[in-house]
Order: sequence, then C-alpha cells, then structure tokens
Amino acid sequence: MSRIVTLLSDFGSQDGYVGAMKGVILGINPRVMPVDISHEIEAHDIMAGALVLAGAYAYFPPRTIHLAVVDPGVGGRRRPIIVETSQACFVGPDNGIFTLIYEREEVIKTVAIENPNFMAPSVSRTFHGRDVFAPAAAHLSLGVPVDEFGPPVERGAVLNVPQARLDGETAEGEVIHVDRFGNLITNITGDLFNQFVEKGLEEIRLASHDVAGPYESYEEACEGELFAVFGSTGLLEISSKRASAHEAWGLGKGTIVRVTRSPGDETKP
Amino acid sequence: MSRIVTLLSDFGSQDGYVGAMKGVILGINPRVMPVDISHEIEAHDIMAGALVLAGAYAYFPPRTIHLAVVDPGVGGRRRPIIVETSQACFVGPDNGIFTLIYEREEVIKTVAIENPNFMAPSVSRTFHGRDVFAPAAAHLSLGVPVDEFGPPVERGAVLNVPQARLDGETAEGEVIHVDRFGNLITNITGDLFNQFVEKGLEEIRLASHDVAGPYESYEEACEGELFAVFGSTGLLEISSKRASAHEAWGLGKGTIVRVTRSPGDETKP
Amino acid sequence: MSRIVTLLSDFGSQDGYVGAMKGVILGINPRVMPVDISHEIEAHDIMAGALVLAGAYAYFPPRTIHLAVVDPGVGGRRRPIIVETSQACFVGPDNGIFTLIYEREEVIKTVAIENPNFMAPSVSRTFHGRDVFAPAAAHLSLGVPVDEFGPPVERGAVLNVPQARLDGETAEGEVIHVDRFGNLITNITGDLFNQFVEKGLEEIRLASHDVAGPYESYEEACEGELFAVFGSTGLLEISSKRASAHEAWGLGKGTIVRVTRSPGDETKP
Repeated sequence: MSRIVTLLSDFGSQDGYVGAMKGVILGINPRVMPVDISHEIEAHDIMAGALVLAGAYAYFPPRTIHLAVVDPGVGGRRRPIIVETSQACFVGPDNGIFTLIYEREEVIKTVAIENPNFMAPSVSRTFHGRDVFAPAAAHLSLGVPVDEFGPPVERGAVLNVPQARLDGETAEGEVIHVDRFGNLITNITGDLFNQFVEKGLEEIRLASHDVAGPYESYEEACEGELFAVFGSTGLLEISSKRASAHEAWGLGKGTIVRVTRSPGDETKP
Repeated sequence: MSRIVTLLSDFGSQDGYVGAMKGVILGINPRVMPVDISHEIEAHDIMAGALVLAGAYAYFPPRTIHLAVVDPGVGGRRRPIIVETSQACFVGPDNGIFTLIYEREEVIKTVAIENPNFMAPSVSRTFHGRDVFAPAAAHLSLGVPVDEFGPPVERGAVLNVPQARLDGETAEGEVIHVDRFGNLITNITGDLFNQFVEKGLEEIRLASHDVAGPYESYEEACEGELFAVFGSTGLLEISSKRASAHEAWGLGKGTIVRVTRSPGDETKP
Repeated sequence: MSRIVTLLSDFGSQDGYVGAMKGVILGINPRVMPVDISHEIEAHDIMAGALVLAGAYAYFPPRTIHLAVVDPGVGGRRRPIIVETSQACFVGPDNGIFTLIYEREEVIKTVAIENPNFMAPSVSRTFHGRDVFAPAAAHLSLGVPVDEFGPPVERGAVLNVPQARLDGETAEGEVIHVDRFGNLITNITGDLFNQFVEKGLEEIRLASHDVAGPYESYEEACEGELFAVFGSTGLLEISSKRASAHEAWGLGKGTIVRVTRSPGDETKP
C-alpha cells in the first residue's frame, strides 16, 4: 500500500482537469494523499515534464507513485505505461516523459496499461489523465501488482536529450531549462566540468558573453554580472544575481554554452 | 464524517487567501484533507467557476464537501448557502455558482447559512470564504447536519447558461470556455449533435471558419486545421493540433458555432 | 507531533522545487500533510512573503509548522532559523521574513539551525529550502525539540516595514501590497483610522485621487469609483468595484495614501 501519489502535468490550474484526476484517485482510494509536483509544464512540452519530474521524484519516500501526464498524443498510438523501479512506480504515457527515469534508475519492469478493470468504465480518447492514468495510480496505491495492469513492454520510449559534448579542449552544451528565477540551466554536469578544473583554469562563455565563476553560491556574485553556479540539480546554471538572467540578457532554451581552457593555461603545470 | 473538502475560488495563488481558508478548515477539523480544484478562476467570473466545478465534482467520492467561492457580491444581500445532494455537499454564495449542480444533480435540500455557531467569532464583510464558508465546510465535515446551519431556501440562484438552440436544419451554440490548451469548449452537447449525425452528414462552422471533424481524438487531426472533437466534458470542442485554437485563430468565449446539414445531404436517404 | 506543515516560497509552480521540498518532508515524516500558502511570492521579495505569511498563519491550528522560504541570500551569511511561539513554529532564513511574527506573537525562542543531523546528508549552497529548511520542518513535526537544532539567537532579523505616520491632522501611509483582485492594501490600521473618525469626518486621498468610503463591504460602492474598505487583514484597502484598482487607476505598491480631517469639520462638535 502507498499513501502518496504525486501529480505532474501540463494541465495548468485554471481548469478542472487536475481536480478531476484527484477526484478519480480519491474515489478509488480515499486514503491517498495527492501531492502536486507541477501542473505548469508548458503545454505539450514532454521534455520539460521529464526534467521537472527528474528534479523532484528522488526526494519522495519509497513506494511513492508518480503520475506524469504531458500527453500531446492522447488517443493516438502511444501506450499508457507503468514503470516500476526499486523505489517507486511511474504512471503516464509512453512518449519519453520517463526518459530520465530510465537513465537514472534501475527499472524492474515496464508494463502497458491494458486491463480495463483498472480504467474508468468509459474511457474518453481525449483525457487519459482522468480515465486511464489516475485510475491506474490509485489501483497501484491499493497494492495491485504491476503485472495485473497489462503485458510487459520491452523498454519505454526515450527522448533525445541534448547531451553536452567534449571536443578537444572545449565542452559544448546548451541551456535546457529556464526556471522561475530566470536561471539558465545547462546540460553540463559537474563531472564533465571537473575534467576542466583538473586540467587548469577554465573559461565559460554563453552565446557571446563571458560568464564569471563558477561560484559556490549566488551570494558570491556581483550584481549585474552573468555568472555560473552548480545549481540544486547538479548541473551548471548561468544566473544573474537577484535578477533573471533570462530576461536581463535575452537568453533562453537552446543557447549554446562553451567551457574552454583559458588561453593562459598553457603555462600551467 | 467526511475527510475531503475541495476548494475552488477566484483568489489566485499569490496572496494568502486560500491558505487562510485551509487554516480555518484545519483549525476546526484537523483530519480534513483540503484538495484544490482551482483558484485561478478569472476574478468575479461566476459562470467560469460554475463550469470548472461542474467538470470536476462528480469524480470525487461520496460525502465529499465542495467549497466554491467566486463571490463578487460578498458582504451584500446574496445568501451563503449549502446545497445537499445525495452524493455531496456544496458550500458557497447563492449567486449561481451552483447552477450546473442544480441542473445535473438531485438536490435534497438547500439551506441558508445563518447560525453564528458555525461561523468565525467575528465575521468580516469582505472575506466570507474565510469567515463563513470555510467554517461551514469544516463543521459539515465533522458531521453537523445541514439543517443546523439555517433555514431551508426554496431554490438557489441560477445563472442564465447560454443554451445551444436547434433551429430547423441548424444548431447554433457558442464557445463557453477556453481551457489551458486554448481548446474552445462550446455548449453543443453530444445528444444535440447526434441528431445531425442521424439525419446525415453535418458541417461545422465556427464564426466564418470551416471546422474539420468531429474526430475521435486530437491525434486524428492535421496540424494547422481547426477541428472538432468531443472533449472530456462531453461537449463539442474546437481545437487546433498541438497549438492553441484560441491564440492561433483569435477566437474566444462567445464565438458562435453552427452545425448544419451539408448541402449535399438532400440526396441521402 | 504535528501533522500540518505549511509552505510559502517564491519558487513558483513551473519547476520541481516545491515538489522536492514536499518529497523531503514526506521522506522524513510520511504522516505530514503539506499545505501550500503560496509559492507565487514575487522572486526575492521578502517583504511580500512576510505579508502573505502574516495573512494566513494565524488561522492554522496550534502546533502547525510554517516553512517560509524567500531566500535571495541562500548560501551567504544569513542564518537558517526556527522561531518558536506559543502556537506554532516558523522555519526559514533569518532575513526578515518573520518580521510580522516578531511584531504580533510572543516568541518563546529563536534558534539557528546548525545541527547537521537534521539536514540533508549533502547540503547545497543554492537550495536550502530542500536541504536545510524542509528537513528541519519535518524533524520538528516528529517532535524533535527546538533546542536540538542549534544555539539560541538573540533575535531574528526584522525588515523596516513602512509604518503609517500620524502628523497633526493627517495620517500618511502607503500601499504595501496589491492583491489578486487589484485591491491596494495600505499600512493604515483600523486603530489609527478610528482616531480620525472619533474626531469627526475624515477625507481619504490616494496619490491625487479622492477616495470614497470607507464602506463596510465592496457591495456598497458604486462601479467606477475608487473607495476604501477595511479588508480582511484589518488594514485600509483601496478598491474599485468588480475591477482592479491597480489596473484601472495605474496605482501600485508605494503609492501614498493620506487621511485628513475634512475642511468642514471645524464646525463640528
């Protein structure tokens, strides 16, 4: 039995869609506590949903059920799936929203949700969040084994996540997410970055701008400069102190970030 | 005893108004689990509140208490009421927000909330959500019978919901809600529409635009076309694939939608 | 043991930051019910966070734990603290966010959070909400005494809250918050205002505009006029009926409001 079901979607909060999903879950298992991760994922942006889910799921206790519905292909051929890991179950469309779960977790099994006993009596073709995914999450929370929902799936769909590349003396990555504060979150990991630090000093450029740092906290930066920091997700972030780097510098998703050895480094041991 | 109290309002989420209501409820009954339906109803838009409530309430388990506060007339003459149905209780201002509950549910009774024992010790004239409705919902959740809150009311206020009309060979309706995805939700029901389908082929026009479909899912549509689908609420929706029909076509609430028999239908049996 | 942990932040709802905090709390104490006050505080606006918290905390039951994270100085020298009052515990950065708690409540003690046993195993310098404050709130909810978190602090930081001043025949205050409805909430309290009422009639001006009222409710006003009302927080609000005074009149935070005796008052007893 699980008590916590998290919800992530692109449904926004002005309509009743999220409420309907919570109602369905509580109608099947009134002991569940629904916990929102976010419903403000940009409409149809599966990658953004995958990233936000990846930033939050690992903090929940074992046996949490995560419902993630960014589902532009609802009613089409993408399958509804459950991904079971040693720590949690993930319920949603098989469209890549669990890409980072596959990357980071040991997946025990993935099944397609096909058993109508665990769906709404009448399933619409426009709102599987309410008619397929919420009922599945609720039945999982009651202890129904994953196998009973449907046949195993070889492996779920994965998105082509932009990877930072190391090319000679340069690492090239890009901004993959802009957060509420206007921080520009890149796909350059701490591990990749540290290869530069070990070799000597490094320089960071974002599009054509010099970037200070990396600093250990936002506090070390000066106001008005663009600086780097390893943010709470372990990825290199480019920020502007108490301001939105996104708005102040006009930079956003897809902007190229380069890390190179400083020209002066050759003289270093 | 009820454990679930849903909340719907136009209070937004940047102020502490929703938090104050939840605090009041939990102060009276700490065992309640408050569940948000939406607080992003447009300010003072009672009809939007009624529609969003109608899209969500029916999915909650029996004995749920629904608090709905879109209340531009707070402090004036509109009464605070409780509407009891066989499935649930609804608490809010008597201003039409429960119009669709009256249309769809068998109402057992409606009472005016007048008993000060079930209100805040000091009742403001500007925030009945906190001082009247939240305490009433919490006391209901503790099992206080509806009759103890005040005298019966003949029937609550109802809004003049725009109805689709069937006029000879044409059904005329209008867009009554625009959702987060920019889907244009009309007041044409499946029953009304099916009368056309039974008679032969049909044509759909929204303002001066041809509308494809109706399709069974968003997936069947082509990108760039305006198409019809019966959405999750059972109403005819006009959508644009992976785009906002609202933004892409500049159409919104009040836009007229017409369903007619195709000119070529006369040759059909 | 406490069951309710409220959360207030400037984290917005599009990222996974709030979800991560809730996950951490539930990972430590799965019996907690997290209750959102607001996550839409303007980024870095400590004063706004203090005001919204002040409008909500007092309605929650005794022993509630309030987590408040508007924390532009995260990773710098400001301390993480717990403020214990007879009714509740407040957890957050020592940057003034608890200013109004210090003003309104009898504080039993304030301690700095320094004990690593009650923090994340690895503490980032960019997200203390997740790594310091959420764990502290969760451990408090399990009954850990406040003293075990760290040494006492003389008194937490307080912001310089703009105070209304009484100057001869005039009280001068300012707009300190604009709410979702566009109501302009001033720092003129009912007590201060009543000194004018006792002396005779009063006049209210906001910037260069005459303000009607104060009325007892929004309903008494005429549409199109700017009027005063004592809002749900006990402070003088300037509103516009069923419209946003903020948008319709172009007035916002910092606008000066003056209350004076009417010129004609001299003839009054």
